[in-house]
Amino acid sequence: MSEHILMQPVSTQSERLRKLRHDVWQANLDLQRHNLVTFTWGNVSAIDRESGLVVIKPSGVAYEDLSADNMVVVDLAGHVVEGDLNPSSDTATHLVLYRTYPHIGGVVHTHSPHATSWAQAGKAIPALGTTHADYFYGSIPCTRPLTNGEIAHDYELNTGVVIVETIAEQDPMAIPGIIVNEHGPFSWGKDAHQAVHNAVVMEVVASMALQTLQINPAVQFINQALLDKHYLRKHGANAYYGQTATNKK
Amino acid sequence: MSEHILMQPVSTQSERLRKLRHDVWQANLDLQRHNLVTFTWGNVSAIDRESGLVVIKPSGVAYEDLSADNMVVVDLAGHVVEGDLNPSSDTATHLVLYRTYPHIGGVVHTHSPHATSWAQAGKAIPALGTTHADYFYGSIPCTRPLTNGEIAHDYELNTGVVIVETIAEQDPMAIPGIIVNEHGPFSWGKDAHQAVHNAVVMEVVASMALQTLQINPAVQFINQALLDKHYLRKHGANAYYGQTATNKK
Amino acid sequence: MSEHILMQPVSTQSERLRKLRHDVWQANLDLQRHNLVTFTWGNVSAIDRESGLVVIKPSGVAYEDLSADNMVVVDLAGHVVEGDLNPSSDTATHLVLYRTYPHIGGVVHTHSPHATSWAQAGKAIPALGTTHADYFYGSIPCTRPLTNGEIAHDYELNTGVVIVETIAEQDPMAIPGIIVNEHGPFSWGKDAHQAVHNAVVMEVVASMALQTLQINPAVQFINQALLDKHYLRKHGANAYYGQTATNKK
Amino acid sequence: MSEHILMQPVSTQSERLRKLRHDVWQANLDLQRHNLVTFTWGNVSAIDRESGLVVIKPSGVAYEDLSADNMVVVDLAGHVVEGDLNPSSDTATHLVLYRTYPHIGGVVHTHSPHATSWAQAGKAIPALGTTHADYFYGSIPCTRPLTNGEIAHDYELNTGVVIVETIAEQDPMAIPGIIVNEHGPFSWGKDAHQAVHNAVVMEVVASMALQTLQINPAVQFINQALLDKHYLRKHGANAYYGQTATNKK
Repeated sequence: MSEHILMQPVSTQSERLRKLRHDVWQANLDLQRHNLVTFTWGNVSAIDRESGLVVIKPSGVAYEDLSADNMVVVDLAGHVVEGDLNPSSDTATHLVLYRTYPHIGGVVHTHSPHATSWAQAGKAIPALGTTHADYFYGSIPCTRPLTNGEIAHDYELNTGVVIVETIAEQDPMAIPGIIVNEHGPFSWGKDAHQAVHNAVVMEVVASMALQTLQINPAVQFINQALLDKHYLRKHGANAYYGQTATNKK
Repeated sequence: MSEHILMQPVSTQSERLRKLRHDVWQANLDLQRHNLVTFTWGNVSAIDRESGLVVIKPSGVAYEDLSADNMVVVDLAGHVVEGDLNPSSDTATHLVLYRTYPHIGGVVHTHSPHATSWAQAGKAIPALGTTHADYFYGSIPCTRPLTNGEIAHDYELNTGVVIVETIAEQDPMAIPGIIVNEHGPFSWGKDAHQAVHNAVVMEVVASMALQTLQINPAVQFINQALLDKHYLRKHGANAYYGQTATNKK
Repeated sequence: MSEHILMQPVSTQSERLRKLRHDVWQANLDLQRHNLVTFTWGNVSAIDRESGLVVIKPSGVAYEDLSADNMVVVDLAGHVVEGDLNPSSDTATHLVLYRTYPHIGGVVHTHSPHATSWAQAGKAIPALGTTHADYFYGSIPCTRPLTNGEIAHDYELNTGVVIVETIAEQDPMAIPGIIVNEHGPFSWGKDAHQAVHNAVVMEVVASMALQTLQINPAVQFINQALLDKHYLRKHGANAYYGQTATNKK
Repeated sequence: MSEHILMQPVSTQSERLRKLRHDVWQANLDLQRHNLVTFTWGNVSAIDRESGLVVIKPSGVAYEDLSADNMVVVDLAGHVVEGDLNPSSDTATHLVLYRTYPHIGGVVHTHSPHATSWAQAGKAIPALGTTHADYFYGSIPCTRPLTNGEIAHDYELNTGVVIVETIAEQDPMAIPGIIVNEHGPFSWGKDAHQAVHNAVVMEVVASMALQTLQINPAVQFINQALLDKHYLRKHGANAYYGQTATNKK
C-alpha cells in the first residue's frame, strides 16, 4: 500500500472509480480546452492501481456528449467491466503502458497537429531549450514503423509494444511522452491530469522545435548541464520550483 | 428505393426539402464554426435523391444573414425551383458531382487557407499519416489546370468536369475530396454534414503535410498496410471504430 | 454631382459627417474583429467627397476608447477641422491617396503580420490563385524603399508619394492595396468598409502565398485567363457573383 | 526624489505597495490575455524605487489563482519581506536587472513560442521593419550560452549577469528586451504594464522576422534612417505619435 493511501481514509473501490470517472471525463474535456483535438481525435484514460481497473473514453463519441457516467471501465486484459459503450479503439495501447510501467497513472493520445507532424516525419522531437527541459529529460523519441505483420494482427497492442521497445532502458517518468511513427503522440503521467499537461507541453515544444530549425538549421541540442538544471529544479528531491512538494512530480 | 427509406415512414417531398434546407443552412454555419471561411468564401449543398432537387447556399450572402428559408433549391440541370436569391456561383460544379456520382449526398467548397495553398501550389496532398488515412484512402489529388477554353465558357461546369476527369476510375467515397488547381478544395460525403466533416479533415491534413515536409523533406508516403488498417477500421464491413454502424460511413 | 447623390435625398454636410464618423469608428473596430491589429497598430479613414473632409482615427488611442465622437475630421490639406485629439500619425499618407485618386472613399493601414512580413521582405505578393484574383487584378505591388531624404522630411507624405509612384498607370481600384517596403500594407476601397474588407483579403492571401511557395518553390503566377475570369465574375459590368448590382464593386 | 513624486501627494510605502501588488497581479493576467503563456510559464514583477521593494508573481501558481494579495514582496537582495508563498524561481534574474538599471520599473519573462524559438536557435531577432523600430532601437540581442559553472551555481543570478554583459554599453530603455540563449525572452519597461507591452511586441516581431526570412532569405536590416524615424517619432523629446507626453516613453 502506497504512502499516498496511508495518508488518506481508506476509500472503497466504487468511491475510487467514481472519482476516476470524473477525473478522466474532465481530462478528456481538457484536451478540447487546450486545442489538442479536432472532432473526437483524442482519448484519455487513468488507472486505479489497487483494483487494476482502467477508466477510458468511449470510442468515437463527441466531447460534448461525454459524461462521467459514459466513461468505460476495463480491466488490464481489456475486458469491459462497466459501461454500455465500446471503449476507445486505442485501449489496447493504453493497457500495454499500464501493464509495463507501474508508475504511470494516466495516458493520453491525440493527433495534435504539431506533434503529429513530427510523427509523420518519423523524427524525434529534439530537446532544444529550457521549455522542453522543464518537462522532458531529453529528446522525445519516435518509434520505428510497425511491420506489416504488427499492423495486420493486434495493431493497437503492437503500437504499445513498439512504444515499450523504444523506451527500452529509459525511465518513462523522466520522458513522459513519445511519437508513434506515421501516427501521433502519446503522453502519460502520474494521473490523467498530468498526462494531459504533458500532451500540451509536447504540442508546444513540437511547434517551437520546427521554428527553431527554420531559424537555425545548424542548431545543437541543449547543453546537457542546462537540461539537468531545468529538469531537476522542477523534479526530484532537490526541486525548488513551485510552492510545496505537491507541485513536484 | 433505398434501404434507408424503407426503415423510415415515407415523407413527402416538401417535408424532405424542409429538412434539407435546415441541414444545409446549419452545414454552412458549420464552415464558420470550424474556421474554414473568411467572409462568404464557402458553400455547402445537399441533394434529395428522390426528387433530384439540390439545396444550396445563395451567392455572396453573409453567414449571419443565412436562414433555412433563404437557401436556394435548384434541379439537377441548374434551374432555380424555389428561392428569390441567386444560388452560389459554384452551383454548376456541385451539380456535376451529383449527376456523376450517385452516392454523393452533400458537397462543400471553401478557400480554407492550408488546403488552398496546396491548390495554388498545384500539388496533391500526400497521405503521410494515420490522421489522413482515417478519412482519405490515399493522397488527395490535385486537378490539372483548366485550359483557357474551359475557363472562357462554362467555367464552373468545367471545374466539375475536370474533377471527374481526375477522379477517373477511383471511388469518390473512398477519397472524398479534391484540390482544384490554382483554386481550392472541394469535398463531399453521404450528406452535407459529412461533406463539412471531410472539409475540416482536408484543412488539418493539408496543414500537417506542409509541416511534415518541412521537418523531413525526404518523407515517404504512409506504409500501404497502415493506410489500409486505419481506413478500414473506420470504414466498411469490418469497421470497429465508434459505437454502432451509424458511426461508420 | 455623382449619380449616387442623385438617387438619395440631399443630406447636409453635418448629417453626412455624422454618418461618416460612425462608419469610420465601426471600420476601425472591424480591424480588431478581423484580428488585423495588435494594440493601436492600425487606422481607417474615409472621405466625404462633397466637402473634401476626411474622418480618421485619432493617434495612439486604444480601440476600446474609440467612439464616433472622438474621430478626427481633417481637410485635404491636413488641417484639423473638428476634434480635440491628434489625428493618426499616418494621416498625411491617407490624404495623398484621396487627393490623387478620386474613386477612393476609404483607406486602411495596418501592421497585420503576414502582409507586413512581405513588406519587410521587400517583395510583391504574387497572384497565385483565385482567392487573390477575386479581389486583386494582379500581384499586390511593393514600393521601393524611401530614400533617406524622403524619410527625413515629410516622411508620411512621402510614403503616399511612393505609393502613387508605384501604382503609376495602373487602376488603383483594380488592385486596391499595396505593400510599403520595410513597413506594411495599405488598402483602400469605395468606402471605409470596403477598405477594411480588402485589408482582410491582403492578410489572407499574404499568408497563403508564403505557404504556397513553401510547398512548391517553382510555382507560377496564376494563368491570366483564370485571373480575368475570377476578377470579372465579381467586378464590372458582366459580374454575376452575389445577388444584385450593390454586391458588385 | 523624482519629478513624478513631486507632482503627486506623497504616498506612504504601504499605499504604494498596495497599488504595485494590484498592478503586478493585473500585468501577470495580461500575459494570458495576450496569449503569451502556457500554464504558469511567465512572470511579471515591478519595483517601488523609493523603498527598493519588488513585487513579483509567486512560483508555479496558476493564473486563475493569483490575486493582488498573494503577490510576493522581496527586497533587492532577494529576501521575502511580505507573503507566504515562494517568489518566482526567476526572481534572482529580475533583481539583477533592477539593481543594474535604475530606469527599469517592471520586468517580464515568458516562454512565448515565437521569441523562444529565436532563443533556442541562439539568434538575435533582427530589426527588419517599422513595427520593430517603433519599440526597439535595433536588433533584439541574444545572450551567449551560460557556462556549465554559471549553470551549476546561482543559475538565475547568472542569467541576469549574462543579460547585463550582453547589453554592455547600450541603453536598456532603447532596446527593452533580450533573448536568453536556449531559454527565452525577457523584457522590461518603466513599469509592469510597459514591460508586458514590450513582451507582446517581441513575440509579434519574432514571428514576422521568421516569415520575412522565409519569403526573402537575403533580406537586409532595416535602413538606419527609417529605424531612427520610427523610433524617434514615438520616443524622446520630439515624439509626435499619440496624444500627449504621457503617451511617450
